[in-house]
Amino acid sequence: MIKDLAAREDGSVSVSGWVEKVRDQRYVQFVVLRDETGAVQLVNGGVLREADPENPRSDILLERTTTISELSHGSFVTVSGELQHNERVKLGGVEIQIEQLEVVSRALPDTPIAKDSGSEHRLDWRFLDLRRPEQNLVFRVQTTFLNALRQVWVERDFIEVQTPKLMASASESRAELFEVDYFDGQAYLAQSPQFFKQMAQAAGFGGIFEVGPAFRADPSFTSRHATEFTSIDSELSWIDSHVDVMELHEELIVAGLTAVKEKHGEAIQKLFGVEVNVPSRPFPRIPLAEAKEIVKAEGYEVPRADADMDPEGERRIAAHVQQKYGSDFVFLTDYDASIRPFYHMRHDDDAQLTRSYDLIYNGTEISTGAQREHRIDVLEAQAREKGMDPKELNFYLDFFRYGMPPHGGFGMGLNRVLMLMLGQSSIRETTFLFRGPNRLTP
Amino acid sequence: MIKDLAAREDGSVSVSGWVEKVRDQRYVQFVVLRDETGAVQLVNGGVLREADPENPRSDILLERTTTISELSHGSFVTVSGELQHNERVKLGGVEIQIEQLEVVSRALPDTPIAKDSGSEHRLDWRFLDLRRPEQNLVFRVQTTFLNALRQVWVERDFIEVQTPKLMASASESRAELFEVDYFDGQAYLAQSPQFFKQMAQAAGFGGIFEVGPAFRADPSFTSRHATEFTSIDSELSWIDSHVDVMELHEELIVAGLTAVKEKHGEAIQKLFGVEVNVPSRPFPRIPLAEAKEIVKAEGYEVPRADADMDPEGERRIAAHVQQKYGSDFVFLTDYDASIRPFYHMRHDDDAQLTRSYDLIYNGTEISTGAQREHRIDVLEAQAREKGMDPKELNFYLDFFRYGMPPHGGFGMGLNRVLMLMLGQSSIRETTFLFRGPNRLTP
Repeated sequence: MIKDLAAREDGSVSVSGWVEKVRDQRYVQFVVLRDETGAVQLVNGGVLREADPENPRSDILLERTTTISELSHGSFVTVSGELQHNERVKLGGVEIQIEQLEVVSRALPDTPIAKDSGSEHRLDWRFLDLRRPEQNLVFRVQTTFLNALRQVWVERDFIEVQTPKLMASASESRAELFEVDYFDGQAYLAQSPQFFKQMAQAAGFGGIFEVGPAFRADPSFTSRHATEFTSIDSELSWIDSHVDVMELHEELIVAGLTAVKEKHGEAIQKLFGVEVNVPSRPFPRIPLAEAKEIVKAEGYEVPRADADMDPEGERRIAAHVQQKYGSDFVFLTDYDASIRPFYHMRHDDDAQLTRSYDLIYNGTEISTGAQREHRIDVLEAQAREKGMDPKELNFYLDFFRYGMPPHGGFGMGLNRVLMLMLGQSSIRETTFLFRGPNRLTP
Repeated sequence: MIKDLAAREDGSVSVSGWVEKVRDQRYVQFVVLRDETGAVQLVNGGVLREADPENPRSDILLERTTTISELSHGSFVTVSGELQHNERVKLGGVEIQIEQLEVVSRALPDTPIAKDSGSEHRLDWRFLDLRRPEQNLVFRVQTTFLNALRQVWVERDFIEVQTPKLMASASESRAELFEVDYFDGQAYLAQSPQFFKQMAQAAGFGGIFEVGPAFRADPSFTSRHATEFTSIDSELSWIDSHVDVMELHEELIVAGLTAVKEKHGEAIQKLFGVEVNVPSRPFPRIPLAEAKEIVKAEGYEVPRADADMDPEGERRIAAHVQQKYGSDFVFLTDYDASIRPFYHMRHDDDAQLTRSYDLIYNGTEISTGAQREHRIDVLEAQAREKGMDPKELNFYLDFFRYGMPPHGGFGMGLNRVLMLMLGQSSIRETTFLFRGPNRLTP
């Protein structure tokens, strides 16, 4: 691996990677070779442009020179040669004097994307775009973040579930639902693992978690929406309120960001110019109504007919919290029942407010969590209040008819978290392969 | 948690769980309460069947007695009382003298499934079926197994990817493909992450892994097939042959089984009567042609027109290997090109044989792995040989046009591994919610 070269002593080495750059000078050739761990400079000092009958190695040198001259950007090569430490080499302080260079896989000479290519064009050639060190880092950060979260769950003896993505009916609303031809009938793609996470509570699983795809037939083209995204989900039994869910949520976020900062903090600073902040607990918690008052007092009236916040309002309350408490995170709590799903539990002392929250990170919503209503009669009444027919929800409501502990949980969009963590402007940059209304490839 | 009770001293405790059993005797009532960690016996010594004007606690005792008499199986309750260690109590050597019992969620009195219910009926009520300690254990084993695998990948600096499940075209064959209405067009559900894992190699990601859903519109009703299943996938660059893939595969299996044996070996023995064996490396490796000769010599001629093995042949070669080498695992290698996908690399010295393998565990195939062909001209020729039109594969073939390292990997069915590890007869028992041709609920 290239990252290991600097620590090695001078001597014979063999490395493999792809050609990032070729400088083909008259008397010396340089190649920058990259693998998934870093880049190194290769040097061909034995440049020979014409056959030299007096040089016994003429054929070899001539061939090597030509091979390097013709090396196309992106080609994968294996090189053996002499590693030399050299302070003047900016790239890691080492270079390799090429002895043998084998082209394992030749790239077409014209790379279809350039540094200044637009986002859609880069997505067309995502596998080349992903070769950029920034992009490689995004997915290393993702790996570290998810691993840290899972360690929290595993230590707490939570069960990992894989809930089905094929369903017989809608998991959230009938809108934004993808329909699948299922043998002679129809199936739908899960918009979230919501129902199944709750089923696991009825099954007595206690704490559970899942990291998996979710699907929304959402026709919008914003920087935050996709038709397929990775959802981080957790649910747990025997909570007293949504506050218990927020506490688990905080613990996970802190563990994830601590691990990312430790392993990638420097690289993130260098490649994205962003400092990873590990938040302190508890995160600020503000009831939604109060948050709206705060941004109103600061000059912004949320232009919505319903009780909800809008993205600009979220940015403003986040800025307020950042200034007042120095926190990148804020929980907005107690959303009005009119803008929450029927299964959110209401407050005992105010049936218009739900025991729910949104988590805002650097000004954008990344998650919704809540205590769920576990009392079947209340649940049915709340469904009817929303104009839903409990009969259509039977497969879900059955979960509550044979005993159900008090429980709650959250779902969080992984790609959004990464976008906000790394200061990116779109989830297209933090999704391995983005899917949108007009994007199904590559 | 109930599992923690035995280690506690006698005194006040509070526990929650669901009612597994009620023994309502004339002068004493017993309740077996279960949570996700275990079961405990609750005792009501203060049984009172009729109001007793001379007892100042008459109302309380009467109500408690009635509540317990009416407790339905499966109801979730919270109990506080006095923990008492008592050797004669078979269930963990402790019991709780009930002081207060609150029914948090009442179950309908008639439980729709019983111990002897058939598989389909149990699947209809899967969330009740999952309350069985055996089922709870299945998913704890799953959690431990996956966590151990991921630690191997993370330590080797592999990148975790989430590949899209919505595709513009088929990832394997056109048969068994689910079609999705995608806005004004069509999408397909990924049959495997195959193409995208390879794309990650072109992207210079090196080693990658994914645990996620895969979809096959497979109309068969066997114990081993599902329309949606969890696929464990890994892929890595710069391999010399499929042997490097097998070595990674072995390392993962050994890590997974070691962790499972350590954490759950006793419970698995107790609930499933099965000993978890950690295999020693290397696993036996037998070329497919040789394996067929072996089972033929032992009296079984594989009744297939093509070069493939059949399930009975797999069972027999596994039995042979078990007897000869004492191994639960065997790699069958070098499958004929005619029965492998076009993208499997062929042997240099025999273009009819692929650099591929199947992994057999306790007689059943759990995985296919291979070195992939990374040379675009060879790949195109192999696609044409299979009657495929390279133009239709363009989005995939593009990955190979701009440089591609030698690489390979495998996909492995999680639910099958668990089925075979725990001696179960069907993946229905080791899938959270099974999906088949006529099963989309719950």
